[in-house]
Amino acid sequence: MVTELAHIDITPGHEADFEAGVAAARPLFLRAAGCLGMELLRGVEHPSSYRLVVKWARLEDHTVTFRNSADFAEWRRLAAPYFASAPAVEHLESCRLE
Amino acid sequence: MVTELAHIDITPGHEADFEAGVAAARPLFLRAAGCLGMELLRGVEHPSSYRLVVKWARLEDHTVTFRNSADFAEWRRLAAPYFASAPAVEHLESCRLE
Repeated sequence: MVTELAHIDITPGHEADFEAGVAAARPLFLRAAGCLGMELLRGVEHPSSYRLVVKWARLEDHTVTFRNSADFAEWRRLAAPYFASAPAVEHLESCRLE
Repeated sequence: MVTELAHIDITPGHEADFEAGVAAARPLFLRAAGCLGMELLRGVEHPSSYRLVVKWARLEDHTVTFRNSADFAEWRRLAAPYFASAPAVEHLESCRLE
């Protein structure tokens, strides 16, 4: 399992538009091959700064399959108009702590 | 509920030391007032880059109560020797997407 962590800064004043776009795009993620869930977090100290957190079964489910799908283009159509800059996307793996 | 997201870069070569320190510190977080869970994520693209994710009932459970506790000092004693730089800590709230 891999966590996609996307840091997305929104043009101030367009937070509600962006959140509506993410809500509209949510089914596109949830039906994607290998997508295990997604959530959107909003900054307390920086309210125009968001994190999109998507859980994928395998890295390639995001980087290859989803990014080359029509649903990815639709996600960007819904959300990208409100991006203040290009999102910074990383992938992370859970560490065992026991 | 508030998510603490700490970006922690580790001196390369000390990843296993750091992960052992976080594992040793895990009970300190889990017994803290208002702590609802914690996990450690490690970067796929940047394997010396971690995210500590801690869920708190209220912002002040982290910023006031935990940071002023002896357990916070112990957490730093366990983990800070491996920090490559000061952690960047933010707090975020979940957005409703339905």
